[in-house]
Amino acid sequence: MRTPATPFSFEELARRIGAEPRGRAVPISGVAPLESAGPSQIAFYSNPRYRKELQATRAGAVIVCEDDVAHVPASAARLVSAQPYVAFAKASALFHAGLAVEPGIQKGALIDDTAEVHPTAAISPGAYVGPGARIGSRTTLHAGARVLDCARVGEDCVLWPGAVVREHCIVGDRVILQPNAVVGSDGFGFAFDLAGDGNGPMHRKVPQAGIVRVEDDVEVGACSCIDRATLGETVIGRGTKIDNLVQVGHNVRVGPLCLLVAQCGISGSTELGQGVVLAGQVGVVGHLRIGDGARAGAQAGVAHDVADGETVTGYPAIPHRDWLRMSVALPRVPELLREVRRLQQRVEQLEKERE
Amino acid sequence: MRTPATPFSFEELARRIGAEPRGRAVPISGVAPLESAGPSQIAFYSNPRYRKELQATRAGAVIVCEDDVAHVPASAARLVSAQPYVAFAKASALFHAGLAVEPGIQKGALIDDTAEVHPTAAISPGAYVGPGARIGSRTTLHAGARVLDCARVGEDCVLWPGAVVREHCIVGDRVILQPNAVVGSDGFGFAFDLAGDGNGPMHRKVPQAGIVRVEDDVEVGACSCIDRATLGETVIGRGTKIDNLVQVGHNVRVGPLCLLVAQCGISGSTELGQGVVLAGQVGVVGHLRIGDGARAGAQAGVAHDVADGETVTGYPAIPHRDWLRMSVALPRVPELLREVRRLQQRVEQLEKERE
Amino acid sequence: MRTPATPFSFEELARRIGAEPRGRAVPISGVAPLESAGPSQIAFYSNPRYRKELQATRAGAVIVCEDDVAHVPASAARLVSAQPYVAFAKASALFHAGLAVEPGIQKGALIDDTAEVHPTAAISPGAYVGPGARIGSRTTLHAGARVLDCARVGEDCVLWPGAVVREHCIVGDRVILQPNAVVGSDGFGFAFDLAGDGNGPMHRKVPQAGIVRVEDDVEVGACSCIDRATLGETVIGRGTKIDNLVQVGHNVRVGPLCLLVAQCGISGSTELGQGVVLAGQVGVVGHLRIGDGARAGAQAGVAHDVADGETVTGYPAIPHRDWLRMSVALPRVPELLREVRRLQQRVEQLEKERE
Repeated sequence: MRTPATPFSFEELARRIGAEPRGRAVPISGVAPLESAGPSQIAFYSNPRYRKELQATRAGAVIVCEDDVAHVPASAARLVSAQPYVAFAKASALFHAGLAVEPGIQKGALIDDTAEVHPTAAISPGAYVGPGARIGSRTTLHAGARVLDCARVGEDCVLWPGAVVREHCIVGDRVILQPNAVVGSDGFGFAFDLAGDGNGPMHRKVPQAGIVRVEDDVEVGACSCIDRATLGETVIGRGTKIDNLVQVGHNVRVGPLCLLVAQCGISGSTELGQGVVLAGQVGVVGHLRIGDGARAGAQAGVAHDVADGETVTGYPAIPHRDWLRMSVALPRVPELLREVRRLQQRVEQLEKERE
Repeated sequence: MRTPATPFSFEELARRIGAEPRGRAVPISGVAPLESAGPSQIAFYSNPRYRKELQATRAGAVIVCEDDVAHVPASAARLVSAQPYVAFAKASALFHAGLAVEPGIQKGALIDDTAEVHPTAAISPGAYVGPGARIGSRTTLHAGARVLDCARVGEDCVLWPGAVVREHCIVGDRVILQPNAVVGSDGFGFAFDLAGDGNGPMHRKVPQAGIVRVEDDVEVGACSCIDRATLGETVIGRGTKIDNLVQVGHNVRVGPLCLLVAQCGISGSTELGQGVVLAGQVGVVGHLRIGDGARAGAQAGVAHDVADGETVTGYPAIPHRDWLRMSVALPRVPELLREVRRLQQRVEQLEKERE
Repeated sequence: MRTPATPFSFEELARRIGAEPRGRAVPISGVAPLESAGPSQIAFYSNPRYRKELQATRAGAVIVCEDDVAHVPASAARLVSAQPYVAFAKASALFHAGLAVEPGIQKGALIDDTAEVHPTAAISPGAYVGPGARIGSRTTLHAGARVLDCARVGEDCVLWPGAVVREHCIVGDRVILQPNAVVGSDGFGFAFDLAGDGNGPMHRKVPQAGIVRVEDDVEVGACSCIDRATLGETVIGRGTKIDNLVQVGHNVRVGPLCLLVAQCGISGSTELGQGVVLAGQVGVVGHLRIGDGARAGAQAGVAHDVADGETVTGYPAIPHRDWLRMSVALPRVPELLREVRRLQQRVEQLEKERE
């Protein structure tokens, strides 16, 4: 971010991002949006909503897929890719290094004597590592990140301010916890006890004695919460990405390469296969099985198992194609009611005349 | 958690959890899930989804209700209880003590000179107690928990990292605040002022001059927010349990023994009776009265008062039985539209023929 | 809050809040709810739900609009205003000063040597200001607020505990960040890369190289998250107020004077005009344009552009008047199904008889 740009020749850049260069461009020193990119910057196009911005762009080159090549104005070179967004991600990464913190334990960091912090890890002021906790090499704890007793955080992780890893939880390598993300909060487990402890009925707390295991290459969004298991483990699978304000209940098992979009929630003991996508504000009830590659549309309320590859929408969630038909039909119900009333009258009239 | 297990004889364990022992078992040293429990551990069964795991279990004993006794395999003893989940909670608590922090103010804790911290309270590094605030006996503030000016936290409480109790708020005894939970944020109160202060219209902030009062035995989930009152108090009643990412607006009064499941939200000045259950992602509009024992199904949008004992679902929420009927009927609307069109043609035909 | 009350004469108070005094009252020393106000306090009335409380009030005076004057009991004077809630906000502000922190850098605050903190700013213990960051005059950072590298926070701001402003973000004047609010978390940007880096497919992170710009007079609620832009800026417009647990995606542009109610979410690159109101738990998909003065009802799922001044509701969101008609009609669908079945039989009968 804001690193001094190292310019790349157009051809070198193309090679690094795996795109085919077409046309000529001056050396490239950065990426920018279509509307603000200049001749030494590249931009990216894929959403037809931004066709006008594409046509007016002053970018030196534009990353596009083969089908969109013709829409790029003559002033810009093309970087043609079968996966243009991937090529853009690679290009942007060449110019933006992310915030670097100096290795070592900075003044004001709070490290328990029994914690093991790798010498190449960077621990900012106000970050905390508790008794028996371990922090791997090249991992960064920003100010106010907290790793409690006996928890383990792997290598090359970034814990932003206010991120919490509670006791005994396990976080793999290359994991990113956005600000105020919580790993290992107690699951919501209470047994309603009619007898109680002598003061009438109570919700008796069920100890949440398990942990959370976050596998490699996971990202957890700001203020997202992953509850520890009642017994055993809550698992977030390798390469899964979790957006902000997401709730993952106790004993949930999320497979690899899933995408959990902002404000969705998964109730306890539900299992997601691999590559599952839950759109924003989706809710999934507990003890379900969501199959590999399944998808749930925004705000869906998933109350039953979902088969591999199935897409569901609505509340309660039904197959997406059925839901589409239904959601087009429902606004016509008021008219339908009137229509049926008229039909009843006409039939009544016919019945009368018959007599 | 991970405390060295103190084994109990099967009969002693049964006595302590209020279950009836049937059969024989070796001394019990822990609880475990059905699928991983060994002969010196007990497991728990109640959800028929896990019948297969029950039949294959190697647990020394299984906690069940009378009706499920026959399903327990012969290899396992039974612990029969009218409230099996309660018995399980008690059993688990025997073996899992939770994370203990040494009493006293640890190095790196930030305590104002005018704060009163009981000598038996445990204040971790990076925790903060502001001017005039009071912390009761045996209460734990983990790293980065914060209690602001003149707030009071009772006895035997646990405030996890990042939990905040803002100024003047009152927290009872045995209260748990999960990581990054917020007690006493400003309510969302703005008066739209057409005149403003000379720079055109503005949303004028209404001072949120009240407090939050959290009664005894309440738990507040990770990243849940309870807004302080505009005037007076927002109240969370005794023994109520709040899951993660829940919003409680200003001047809301939640009765005792309620359950507010993850990501639900209650708008300002609404009152909940006792034992109310709001399922996940429910929304309740402001100034309503939700009666004792009322329930709202997942994702319900509650726009009207709910009577004692009533269960509502849907958006806008209606009685659950009506909603069930409706939600079965709605997917048939597309076909119904076609059906009515056909009927119209047939009636038209009959009308023609009659002439 | 809890400041010793400075009494105002009834007339002086009326003048200060821009209301017309009618009747007589003793000097006023505070504001209180209708049900608890005494003779030296004023109360506020506008919602007919609280008519009973109004009739029983012992307040010295009540703020009301002209139409409600007749409902105020004879014992109370009236403060008549065309904008009674605005007058109440002004009155309350006279008596409630908010929590004051002494200017200067307190012991236990963590300030990088290269940070610029104005001498009149108040930095509490455990607050953090990173390298190159700037804090304006009279701004308060409560315990555990964090401003990372090169970020800028303007004048007269209040950052409550756990609030985070990530690197390079820009926060204007008079901005309030409630506890654990997050400004500048990474946007949810991943490009699915079939090739990956040699270990199979992966979600490749797209650098979130932009910033968030929060304009003057904005408030951000507890645990709300505003993602930084992929490139360029995510913008929160002047005077916009954001409630708790709200999600604002990367590259979103929110206009001035909007209200985003608790738990709503806005997906990436969507633009909101000025004065837009999103009610609680609303979701808005990405790349949309929501016009000036548009509104979305609680839990709406907005999937298409919304015109200026339009109000939408439901999922998918439709114009509010259509939705009202529809939501009244839908519960009648089960009966409609039966009705149509009966009609079919009657028509069949008529057709038979005709033969």
